[in-house]
Amino acid sequence: MIHFAIKPLDRSLESALVHKINSLTKPKGSLGFLEELALQIGLIQHTLSPVFTNPTNVLFGGDHGVIYEGVSLSPKQVTYQQMAHFATGTAGVNFLCRQHGFNLVLVDAGVDAEFDPKLGILDRKVRRSTRNYLHEDAMTAEELEMAVERGAEVVRAIHADGCNVVSFGEMGSGNTSSSSIWMHVFGNIPLAECVGAGAGLDSAGIRHKLDVLTRALRRHDINELRANPLLTMAAYGGFEMVMAVGAMLQAAELKMTILLDGFIMSACLLAASQLYPEVKEYVVYGHVGDESGHKRMIEILGGRPVLNLGLRLGEGTGAICAYPIVASALHMINEMDTFVTGKVTKYFK
Amino acid sequence: MIHFAIKPLDRSLESALVHKINSLTKPKGSLGFLEELALQIGLIQHTLSPVFTNPTNVLFGGDHGVIYEGVSLSPKQVTYQQMAHFATGTAGVNFLCRQHGFNLVLVDAGVDAEFDPKLGILDRKVRRSTRNYLHEDAMTAEELEMAVERGAEVVRAIHADGCNVVSFGEMGSGNTSSSSIWMHVFGNIPLAECVGAGAGLDSAGIRHKLDVLTRALRRHDINELRANPLLTMAAYGGFEMVMAVGAMLQAAELKMTILLDGFIMSACLLAASQLYPEVKEYVVYGHVGDESGHKRMIEILGGRPVLNLGLRLGEGTGAICAYPIVASALHMINEMDTFVTGKVTKYFK
Repeated sequence: MIHFAIKPLDRSLESALVHKINSLTKPKGSLGFLEELALQIGLIQHTLSPVFTNPTNVLFGGDHGVIYEGVSLSPKQVTYQQMAHFATGTAGVNFLCRQHGFNLVLVDAGVDAEFDPKLGILDRKVRRSTRNYLHEDAMTAEELEMAVERGAEVVRAIHADGCNVVSFGEMGSGNTSSSSIWMHVFGNIPLAECVGAGAGLDSAGIRHKLDVLTRALRRHDINELRANPLLTMAAYGGFEMVMAVGAMLQAAELKMTILLDGFIMSACLLAASQLYPEVKEYVVYGHVGDESGHKRMIEILGGRPVLNLGLRLGEGTGAICAYPIVASALHMINEMDTFVTGKVTKYFK
Repeated sequence: MIHFAIKPLDRSLESALVHKINSLTKPKGSLGFLEELALQIGLIQHTLSPVFTNPTNVLFGGDHGVIYEGVSLSPKQVTYQQMAHFATGTAGVNFLCRQHGFNLVLVDAGVDAEFDPKLGILDRKVRRSTRNYLHEDAMTAEELEMAVERGAEVVRAIHADGCNVVSFGEMGSGNTSSSSIWMHVFGNIPLAECVGAGAGLDSAGIRHKLDVLTRALRRHDINELRANPLLTMAAYGGFEMVMAVGAMLQAAELKMTILLDGFIMSACLLAASQLYPEVKEYVVYGHVGDESGHKRMIEILGGRPVLNLGLRLGEGTGAICAYPIVASALHMINEMDTFVTGKVTKYFK
């Protein structure tokens, strides 16, 4: 039984927050999006002085049975290799975690291999790889529920360690395919507009990927999928993605700020918001990237991305890269003087 | 005599830099703009392992004689008040400097007041305020040359202290007016498209500002202005702006990375590039903001902004806010593993 107690934002401090932000020594609105971020995070934390503590990137890894259909340029073993690589500290996600003081929590959600325990990767494996959803559902309802719960449990643990701002990343060869299907079903967008190059497919590769996904979708009635988000997630998901859905919902319940990464995490938020629309109020959209459909998905979600740098690496990199900008919004509201205390003539209306 | 020895970028390491960036453990191009920034700064520093040292924001302040024509919502005394305010550490620029480890150097280029020496503001005052350019040139040729040289001298000093990345900020009530004129003259853009709200003018205020600037421009022949950048700068500039021009040119000569701030600093770069087009190769465009014309000016300059957050505060804030993103590019090239050393199957063509 999947249940989270996610509340809409308590807006009782909204006018006080707006007043504080407008009293700072700057022309009104001149710090642009930083002012909106300070307001949102003040509301999430229900305080006029929001702060971030113990920022953490949780990175879920999982393999996809559909990989054998040739939907990805990235061979399956890359999931295992990269997860092990993250543990050594020299991958893309690592330099960003170090730069911005993020803890990195690596979670094996369903990698088709066993990791050396010395790597420190949390073993939350539901199963070695999903099933090939061209032929059968990727996971059972029981496996889905287990993945949601394990994702939530990881978030409860980091929250207990004092974390109040979290980004989620993923590693899973083939997971842009699942994301495209979720986007198609939940966003009501033609499949062809949801399918992109992933790790670097050429146009023939993209056509093949589209063909495989089109055939896979024939296994279920589209209206039934739309009406039943859990069925869609189980039928075409990845364990790392479903775990991220559970993690996002738990983070929202705990009133943590969620920094959203790229295309795949946006698909996970879209899925999570089918269950609990309020989850979106806790989300800061880290970036819009180059993967086809990412921009469209953010529009569907109604978010405004902090960065637009053409990133498409995943791992949480786009979210962590945006963190200092979001942190600037909190420095602003906590450290800037007001016109009264700053002895500056208020020079706007 | 204004002279700088600015060299175009030495591109002899370009292919080695591109090879290094493409060998990192990520799909080719998947770190987007970070990859371009790493290449540019590698070329500027002529090394495969570029690093930033002693980042510094130099903030020039100056008053404008044209302020008495009602072109700004911000009264003249705000220049003095805000400069003193920056010295106390509680303004917009301060929290960003603290967050990202920037030194802040405050320079009195031409404020119409005397500062308490205890504030630590460098006295490089050319004159108390420019003249009112509605009626006469804002400064003489000698004052212009003095301002350029004093800006350059400040940069030589911070470079001698180990700084290799610098942002420039400004404080000067009325300086969006000078910037609009420079943009009009150097960018060959109709004046109406160069004039915006500044610190918050309404549409009647903008119309008045446009009228004043139109009349001021009648004092000189437009073709003569276009052919003679120094004349344009002296006729319609601000001391803080001309000092920034000298500072940018000196920074480029010293092969420092220049982080560009907003509308006013973009006008200064446009002016600087009339004298030495190569200066642009040393510039990272920090952000595109909300001030009307800023986006257009960046297009003229041919730059790609790192951030698009609707900032329009000045002081260097947009440039400093972008710094961690640019720093991420250097962490990437220095800390990420390659496919060979990282034991990951190369999963792109």
